[in-house]
Amino acid sequence: MEIRPTLDPGSEVPLYRQLGVYLHKLIENGELRPGDRLPPTRELAGQLGLNRTTVSAAYELLETQGLIKGEVGRGSYVCGTKRAPAAGTTRATPESLNWARLLTPSIGPAAATPASDVISFTNSRPAANLFPVDEFRASCLEVLGREDLKALLQLGSPGGYEPLRRYLMERAAAQGLAGPDDEILITNGCQQALDLLRRALVKAGDRVAMEDPVYPGQKNLFLEAGAELTGIAIGEDGIDLAGLRRAFDRGARLLVVTPSFQNPTGATIPAAHRETICAMARAAGAAIVENDVYSELACDGTLLPRLKQFDPNVILLGSFSKIAFPGVRVGWIIAPRAVIARATELKQLADLHTDHLAQAFLLHFARSGRLAAHEAHVLEAARGKLRALDESCRRHLAGCAWQIPGGGMNIWITLPAGLDAVSLRGLAQQAGIDYLPGRYFAVSHPQDGGLRLSFAGLEPHEIREGIAILGAVIQRANGLRGAAAQSPALALV
Amino acid sequence: MEIRPTLDPGSEVPLYRQLGVYLHKLIENGELRPGDRLPPTRELAGQLGLNRTTVSAAYELLETQGLIKGEVGRGSYVCGTKRAPAAGTTRATPESLNWARLLTPSIGPAAATPASDVISFTNSRPAANLFPVDEFRASCLEVLGREDLKALLQLGSPGGYEPLRRYLMERAAAQGLAGPDDEILITNGCQQALDLLRRALVKAGDRVAMEDPVYPGQKNLFLEAGAELTGIAIGEDGIDLAGLRRAFDRGARLLVVTPSFQNPTGATIPAAHRETICAMARAAGAAIVENDVYSELACDGTLLPRLKQFDPNVILLGSFSKIAFPGVRVGWIIAPRAVIARATELKQLADLHTDHLAQAFLLHFARSGRLAAHEAHVLEAARGKLRALDESCRRHLAGCAWQIPGGGMNIWITLPAGLDAVSLRGLAQQAGIDYLPGRYFAVSHPQDGGLRLSFAGLEPHEIREGIAILGAVIQRANGLRGAAAQSPALALV
Repeated sequence: MEIRPTLDPGSEVPLYRQLGVYLHKLIENGELRPGDRLPPTRELAGQLGLNRTTVSAAYELLETQGLIKGEVGRGSYVCGTKRAPAAGTTRATPESLNWARLLTPSIGPAAATPASDVISFTNSRPAANLFPVDEFRASCLEVLGREDLKALLQLGSPGGYEPLRRYLMERAAAQGLAGPDDEILITNGCQQALDLLRRALVKAGDRVAMEDPVYPGQKNLFLEAGAELTGIAIGEDGIDLAGLRRAFDRGARLLVVTPSFQNPTGATIPAAHRETICAMARAAGAAIVENDVYSELACDGTLLPRLKQFDPNVILLGSFSKIAFPGVRVGWIIAPRAVIARATELKQLADLHTDHLAQAFLLHFARSGRLAAHEAHVLEAARGKLRALDESCRRHLAGCAWQIPGGGMNIWITLPAGLDAVSLRGLAQQAGIDYLPGRYFAVSHPQDGGLRLSFAGLEPHEIREGIAILGAVIQRANGLRGAAAQSPALALV
Repeated sequence: MEIRPTLDPGSEVPLYRQLGVYLHKLIENGELRPGDRLPPTRELAGQLGLNRTTVSAAYELLETQGLIKGEVGRGSYVCGTKRAPAAGTTRATPESLNWARLLTPSIGPAAATPASDVISFTNSRPAANLFPVDEFRASCLEVLGREDLKALLQLGSPGGYEPLRRYLMERAAAQGLAGPDDEILITNGCQQALDLLRRALVKAGDRVAMEDPVYPGQKNLFLEAGAELTGIAIGEDGIDLAGLRRAFDRGARLLVVTPSFQNPTGATIPAAHRETICAMARAAGAAIVENDVYSELACDGTLLPRLKQFDPNVILLGSFSKIAFPGVRVGWIIAPRAVIARATELKQLADLHTDHLAQAFLLHFARSGRLAAHEAHVLEAARGKLRALDESCRRHLAGCAWQIPGGGMNIWITLPAGLDAVSLRGLAQQAGIDYLPGRYFAVSHPQDGGLRLSFAGLEPHEIREGIAILGAVIQRANGLRGAAAQSPALALV
């Protein structure tokens, strides 16, 4: 079986994914059969003129799809079983269906499982040790003791729990974030808000603009829908305006953007740029989804105007998960009526409605003032984390580039030229830390020279210790690379 | 503007939907413009040779999409605003985006809002007055008092809360419903399980077989995905085997089926047919999704073997919502590993994971034995409801056809020939009851002569009173129809 894919290096679809899809088809068509051995990555890379990591990533993708299996020292083999018996057989047999043929293909390899027993910068989530457990428990007990508990246990409305909807809309109106044409939909956190809006706004082939890098949960969602993603580079001031204008000129009809403390870069867009972005989208007749889950995590307390304040057409996403409890899944969409009407239809198809108790608990927690008190506590702690981050990056990350954000949960480190965050990760894990390599966040541009550090879940002393370890690992790798560059025999690897 | 759609009466897509999509395109393309008046339904129906209710349903569809607006006495008008300003305008304006152009189209008209202040047979849900509120509250308090509450508030795993997964898998294994190759995924109720499986198994254009009639939440989900639905008629023994065989022969690669107490018909498939269904799917290399949310609602306590027991490839859906609390959104999928791996990926994209507290509460409620006690109580009450249903149908529904189920929540009434459940509904609401007309459940065959009565949420005396009212409404309509048939002048209406 010869492997001769037609790959397009100019495509927005990364090469490893193109190769993965090609191999998936060979397996689906039966040209590669169960038990067949795939060529070693090094061999196939040479044959196709590709980087070996590209081939490895394609194999990794197929492995997460259960199509192939790698065995140490033996290479990778096609999994699966024979085709279903011919029609006419009438007795069920325990033989397995050909799931590889029946299942829709995966979009990309999941980020490899984070290492345990290390200082882990892998998760963009709040610190559990700050959770105000007693206050939250008190709110739950108050809700559970109410007369209307029966109504909470019964089927509810797709739009959400009415008292929570009202509370959030009043709060938003007071902040200038909801106008007379706006409505609200309660979702299972911000991820579901994005999923519903993707279904409401994107058909296969539509062009969608988003920051590049961006967190995989956003990118993969739109890729699953068959959208064509245009990744817009991020600079010091967030998304690049010239790149964004080009994307609109080329027909992007949707921009998904996180103006404050973007994930993974931590970048924040200044107010003047925000107004320009709204104007550009408006001129292009394109919709904007504004992911606003991080803006209240501003350590100096300054809230920049949201895009929604410049244009009432903006679709605003909010959530309790970044300030309060990600395990309690409640988020929301505030948008013009037509958008909410369509998204609510889709919410009903997706899962009828968001869990009632979660909505009632969080409403009580917010309305009682406990959420605001908790937020102040989180911001106080965050200031210490940012100081630790700033000091230890300056001290240990010579040769790297970064920008300390004014809040949020994430920071992006650009490695010294020539270093690759995927290769470095194994060394980092051995040394006692873990992070997510830039590759998982790449949209249109390779991000192999960058990595994300999620700091919000760590203590200042862990941040200091972790960054020191990262610095040492980078210096060591840089040294090795320098040595390798002087040695032609090794430099080919 | 002339309206000349090309409609295909032989298509599986109902005519009203074909007409709705055609009109949607005219609006999208600007051939129909904001403010334009649509022809009266009677006029357009005459012009196109369609039934007037078909045109009304198409207009209703466009109205739910926010594309047109009907005004009493003035007809229907195209809504929306002018196109976005040309590129080059750089100042945001409060003018509204053209949402009709940006939003994906709706699949079908939502069932008209149920009437209030009547005996309502519209909702397939348990009776809130049976909810064991004190027992559930006790379970919640025990969970909230635990040391590990912090972990429950933190971000969890897409696959679900591990202790709940283990509990459900052990229970399933003990019942022969999970084998060594099976895994489990926790979802937000059965509706999300269907949504994730739809994404995992169906591409646009794929043929999917399902019962006809079927509840709209299932049908519309697959229509949204662009699947071609083949509705298989339901008889006394549930799904028609000859029809199912034809569907597989024509290339259906997925069957979604509710073998026990199907929604909306209440039909149950006998054990021998179940084995045949598995064998047919197996021979066709097709997957089966078995919706098993009602089988434990068997009033005589007999549990028929599930399809999953005949073929380990079957994908089994379960939920707590039909026995316990629909407001607490927890369901699950048990299926071969490859299916669960793909569905778990999609779950992560859809909403990261199901609410942690809901999972922990229900696990505690089940493990403490309180769920089983509640189930016995529900079944006892259900026996009284079924008796009331049986007696009052016999007494009041002369000329109708029905079959009293052995459990579940729904029953299907076939009206006397010539009566239409949509037209009848207005009379029924005026007389003091409400139901859902068959049209909302139609897949490939018209179901206008049938209606669903959901009885589980009502008391026996309400069932008796409601069926008496329904019977009187039917007799009255039948009388009017008889009179009309004798009067040529009216018969044209």
